[in-house]
Amino acid sequence: MFETAEVGHALPAEEYDALVPELRTGLLRAQNELARDAKFSVVVVIAGVDGAGKGETVNALHDWMDPRFLLAHAFGPPSDEEAERPPMWRFWRDLPPKGRIGMFFGSWYTAPILQRVYGEARDADLDTALERINGFEKALVDDGTLVLKYWFHISKKAQRRRLKELSRDPKQAWRVTPVDWKHYELFDAFLPVCERALRETSTGEAPWTIVEGVDRRYREVTVGQHLLASVQRHLERSRVAAVAPPVPVVAPPVARRTVLDTVDLSAALSREEYRERMDEGQARLAALSRAAEEQGATLLAVFEGPDAAGKGGAIRRVTRAIDARHYRVIPIAAPTDEERARHYLWRFWRHLPRAGNLVIFDRSWYGRVLVERVEGFAAPHEWMRAYKEINELEERLYEFGIGVCKFWLHIDKEEQLRRFQERERTSYKEFKITEEDYRNRAKWELYEDAVHDMVERTSTAHAPWTLVAANDKLHARVEVVETLCDTLEAELRWRRKRKKRSV
Amino acid sequence: MFETAEVGHALPAEEYDALVPELRTGLLRAQNELARDAKFSVVVVIAGVDGAGKGETVNALHDWMDPRFLLAHAFGPPSDEEAERPPMWRFWRDLPPKGRIGMFFGSWYTAPILQRVYGEARDADLDTALERINGFEKALVDDGTLVLKYWFHISKKAQRRRLKELSRDPKQAWRVTPVDWKHYELFDAFLPVCERALRETSTGEAPWTIVEGVDRRYREVTVGQHLLASVQRHLERSRVAAVAPPVPVVAPPVARRTVLDTVDLSAALSREEYRERMDEGQARLAALSRAAEEQGATLLAVFEGPDAAGKGGAIRRVTRAIDARHYRVIPIAAPTDEERARHYLWRFWRHLPRAGNLVIFDRSWYGRVLVERVEGFAAPHEWMRAYKEINELEERLYEFGIGVCKFWLHIDKEEQLRRFQERERTSYKEFKITEEDYRNRAKWELYEDAVHDMVERTSTAHAPWTLVAANDKLHARVEVVETLCDTLEAELRWRRKRKKRSV
Repeated sequence: MFETAEVGHALPAEEYDALVPELRTGLLRAQNELARDAKFSVVVVIAGVDGAGKGETVNALHDWMDPRFLLAHAFGPPSDEEAERPPMWRFWRDLPPKGRIGMFFGSWYTAPILQRVYGEARDADLDTALERINGFEKALVDDGTLVLKYWFHISKKAQRRRLKELSRDPKQAWRVTPVDWKHYELFDAFLPVCERALRETSTGEAPWTIVEGVDRRYREVTVGQHLLASVQRHLERSRVAAVAPPVPVVAPPVARRTVLDTVDLSAALSREEYRERMDEGQARLAALSRAAEEQGATLLAVFEGPDAAGKGGAIRRVTRAIDARHYRVIPIAAPTDEERARHYLWRFWRHLPRAGNLVIFDRSWYGRVLVERVEGFAAPHEWMRAYKEINELEERLYEFGIGVCKFWLHIDKEEQLRRFQERERTSYKEFKITEEDYRNRAKWELYEDAVHDMVERTSTAHAPWTLVAANDKLHARVEVVETLCDTLEAELRWRRKRKKRSV
Repeated sequence: MFETAEVGHALPAEEYDALVPELRTGLLRAQNELARDAKFSVVVVIAGVDGAGKGETVNALHDWMDPRFLLAHAFGPPSDEEAERPPMWRFWRDLPPKGRIGMFFGSWYTAPILQRVYGEARDADLDTALERINGFEKALVDDGTLVLKYWFHISKKAQRRRLKELSRDPKQAWRVTPVDWKHYELFDAFLPVCERALRETSTGEAPWTIVEGVDRRYREVTVGQHLLASVQRHLERSRVAAVAPPVPVVAPPVARRTVLDTVDLSAALSREEYRERMDEGQARLAALSRAAEEQGATLLAVFEGPDAAGKGGAIRRVTRAIDARHYRVIPIAAPTDEERARHYLWRFWRHLPRAGNLVIFDRSWYGRVLVERVEGFAAPHEWMRAYKEINELEERLYEFGIGVCKFWLHIDKEEQLRRFQERERTSYKEFKITEEDYRNRAKWELYEDAVHDMVERTSTAHAPWTLVAANDKLHARVEVVETLCDTLEAELRWRRKRKKRSV
């Protein structure tokens, strides 16, 4: 695989000088169009062998282009705020908005490759990591992002020569660190791991470009021209009205019956039973949330359900048991413009709390497959692929040890109407009811279908949906509090076990 | 001062039960109006004696109100990302947007008070810190924010009783930490420091409300009612067309001559001289920026100037010398909606880099007193007070050891026209010139006045303006690079000295 980058590519100075002015003009122009249209973002991954000129090439690109619309990100050891979230958090955090180019040094490839080379992970672990990377990059590409990946390669001999050269030059010696020499010693160990990484992640949507790194002029022009041509083609494509990709046919309902029909809406609690179980549940939750805070356990709860299903009331029964310093309720309404300029999951990643906290989403990423599907805000191919994207998000949270609770609070149509009318009569609830609520109501069956599909496709062992019978508010609230307790308890148990194992 | 909070205030249960339902309704309604109009934000500071019920009161408020529009922030020891920025950074970061209420536990008052009590600071240091707090809160209030500050007080005897009580209750014992007992021992030392803090910061715009903390019902209702009445009054005020506050008369120009007339625009460099000095300057900058990175020194550069003054070109000569991983260029254009929902300085605070980096603002907070003043986007009282707000920002940066370089790149009207025409002729520069550039040009004299005032009011010893003669681009670029070198050198020298002193 890397043989093609050990053939001694070099660009004579005259050719370089002849090519660069036009290349520069092209890049500036493309960058300007990109910024003006702001239809997509460009993510550039810079990776490869130490001493192969990665940093210098990026500096050259910055020199040629407008640095105001370029965002370079380097990633060293994670900060404590980063270490308290899943590893992908810091990359999500730095994703460029539409119209901008983000350059990632030390990207999501670094950790999996190093872990394998250092023997901390096996091949199977590496493959799992790479598959996840594919999922992540696919989500970006599907969202319109142009993902470009450059791998800088030089031979072992060339690396040795280069590191020595740099070390001798007082102006460049800082570029060579002890880690570089260590990696030089490991060159032969790196080779097969890197090859595997490139092979597995050179997908149709986001292939790798291997760049021979010996000759400065060659590598700069190679990357510059490829970047330019890619951005230009993507700009052209973005101007053509796209034909939506094909969407598989969903089996038409035969004997229509949804998973919601299995919810026993007659479930109810007496006042006394409610008081007793709620007191117990809240006391349990209070103790558990303090333990979670001490141990750095994070819990994430998602609340969905029809209007007036009692999400707010249920959330309040939860928060009442927890110190206000350790939870946050995130109401999901219209995205801000910073959110709109990025992948729809970005706004949820950014709200992941530091360790030891509870975050409650009042409506969530499931909006993509609920309201956006039913109202047509997302095209079928968009919400269709969202199930997988969502499952991947939740898997990442789960693996990191974050508990995920998802509640669908269910009521029937009659109960909803009764509550709407009650709200209109109650002085401090009147603002809760608008025309739109009645409009949404007319689409009740469409929402039922959407919920059915959502549960089918996203209720997983590690992040199951809890369908809560909510015609009786007392019953619903108790079930929510108790489910949260059970999840948090399991999470804390798992942490204790893991800790024991690692002792 | 605290005698009024040791008189045994208590609210009987019946009265509490009678008051709370209406209070709750009122709070929900006010919160809803606040969120709907989104005309201002509310900042609530919760401070006071340990064991006086701060946490419990905030929890009660969360219970009464809609937790979706409430943001509680607790501040423990700073994270490493926080520690690398000036102390106020984390509070700026968490300021609520318009329409929301942010509750700050462990606010900007904590550190100054503790440092004084622990003997790490003298009275004069405390006074300085308090004066700065006044400046910060005034900036928020001037921006329309409602700032409410609650001080929870109990007597020493009551504190002892309370801590003992809590320790005995297995459900509450977690609330009492060793630090609480340490603070109890220091009670008499705290008293005068807290009194001083409250006295100095009980301003007309943001006075303290002292709450006796012994009785749960009393403190909850006291804070709830005060919060409600304050928000209601602020909502009413926000609906009335405000009469702009009076603005002092500026002395009319006699024999009009601005500071810009002192810039010798004939300054120029020959090609050879340019090459020599630029090479030397860039080499120096490269070495300095690496030293800065190693030592965690941050540098902030601001570029202002008329259109086509050559800001972009100068910036590029700077970035060319620095590794792309260690600088960021922030182009300041229209604010995003998240930025618009906060104080105008928020968007600059959020871009402060981690330690060891250079951040370049291509246009900056000075927009407030330049384009916003000239175009009338900011009212006279708004840009008038901005000078002080800006000076305070730069002072905070300076004190934290961040170097601030401010460049005004100056050209004359003829040179600007020449450059506009050249841009229209150059293929890859044509996008740089728009109708608006010609419109701005018509206001040349107004801008000159604005620059004159800006230099007069914001060119300080620690963050001076450098007026750069830029009719000759070569001269301008060299001056910028050399000035940055000098600043960075001084910053590094200062760091070495400080380090030596502390050894």
